[in-house]
Amino acid sequence: MKKIITISREFGAGGGEIGKRLAEELQYDYYDKELILMAAAHADIAVSNLIEWDEKVPINFGFTQSLFNFYNKPMSEKIFEAQKQVIRKIGEKGHCVIVGRNANAILKEYDDCLNVFIRADFNWRLNRMKDKMENLTESQVAGEMKTIDRVRKKYCTYYTNTNFGSMEQYDIALNSSRLGIDACVKAILALVK
Amino acid sequence: MKKIITISREFGAGGGEIGKRLAEELQYDYYDKELILMAAAHADIAVSNLIEWDEKVPINFGFTQSLFNFYNKPMSEKIFEAQKQVIRKIGEKGHCVIVGRNANAILKEYDDCLNVFIRADFNWRLNRMKDKMENLTESQVAGEMKTIDRVRKKYCTYYTNTNFGSMEQYDIALNSSRLGIDACVKAILALVK
Repeated sequence: MKKIITISREFGAGGGEIGKRLAEELQYDYYDKELILMAAAHADIAVSNLIEWDEKVPINFGFTQSLFNFYNKPMSEKIFEAQKQVIRKIGEKGHCVIVGRNANAILKEYDDCLNVFIRADFNWRLNRMKDKMENLTESQVAGEMKTIDRVRKKYCTYYTNTNFGSMEQYDIALNSSRLGIDACVKAILALVK
Repeated sequence: MKKIITISREFGAGGGEIGKRLAEELQYDYYDKELILMAAAHADIAVSNLIEWDEKVPINFGFTQSLFNFYNKPMSEKIFEAQKQVIRKIGEKGHCVIVGRNANAILKEYDDCLNVFIRADFNWRLNRMKDKMENLTESQVAGEMKTIDRVRKKYCTYYTNTNFGSMEQYDIALNSSRLGIDACVKAILALVK
């Protein structure tokens, strides 16, 4: 029985939804956005400062962008290190699903870790995201998707020295646009149990 | 219920074994090496000629190498086309597992096709293959593995214009060295049923 599931994902591919469904099914704890706040608490950075920093992103519909500031520089080493500590603590506790944050690389020495990658075709992701970002035009949404994918890649390479999406670092990679969310959840559950 | 399973794989990653296990479980037909002979029959190439051609490989422990001749040129268009026809016929019949031969690309317009990629860490593959090639030294086995992986990539790009192992063309990719053969079979079955 795998006690930790990490999910890396392309933006809009449904990694968060799949993660939540897995956490429900397995009665595991689910972590994503909250991590940065937990990390901040751990490192004694005032949460209020962090939220302010987090809001420095041009369009506020996610928080991946906020990993990089306006000048496209990575977030501070201090915050990254704090986050890493938090992910390790969560990993030690086990029974958890962690979405994003390169948790697979941070927890690479843990044996009972199942590392998942979720990808999907661009147009499928675009259709999903259009509905969630009603205030943007289709081409704006497409632009944001490309930016976020690029930022995730850069973040992954910068902090973990591995290639985002390359199969060496995952146990299973799933194509959610071809399989659907339900099937992805089923395949992962087959590996966890 | 998916009626066709195609398996692409790195050499030594256990794709054939996984394919056979799936075929057994699902009572599907299993195809790999025989394809070239069936293709030959279809195209009216004498099987005896083909076997001779097939033996033109330096070390006779598989047949992937024989896709390319001594000068590393792809096999003839005629044989490739014949093979493609056979794969289409098998696909139309359904209830089959097809290992290798870029069947996923050849059958890409089929809806009830599950496309699988199996990869594994190099040393794990090396250990498996060492046992199967007792007459070779470890470094010879390693050299052969690299050659075959390279040939498969080249064959894939040459005939299908897609990248071997890149996730756009598969529904699921599994890391057999991390998960084990059993778990790979289970995850795929969860998607087929």
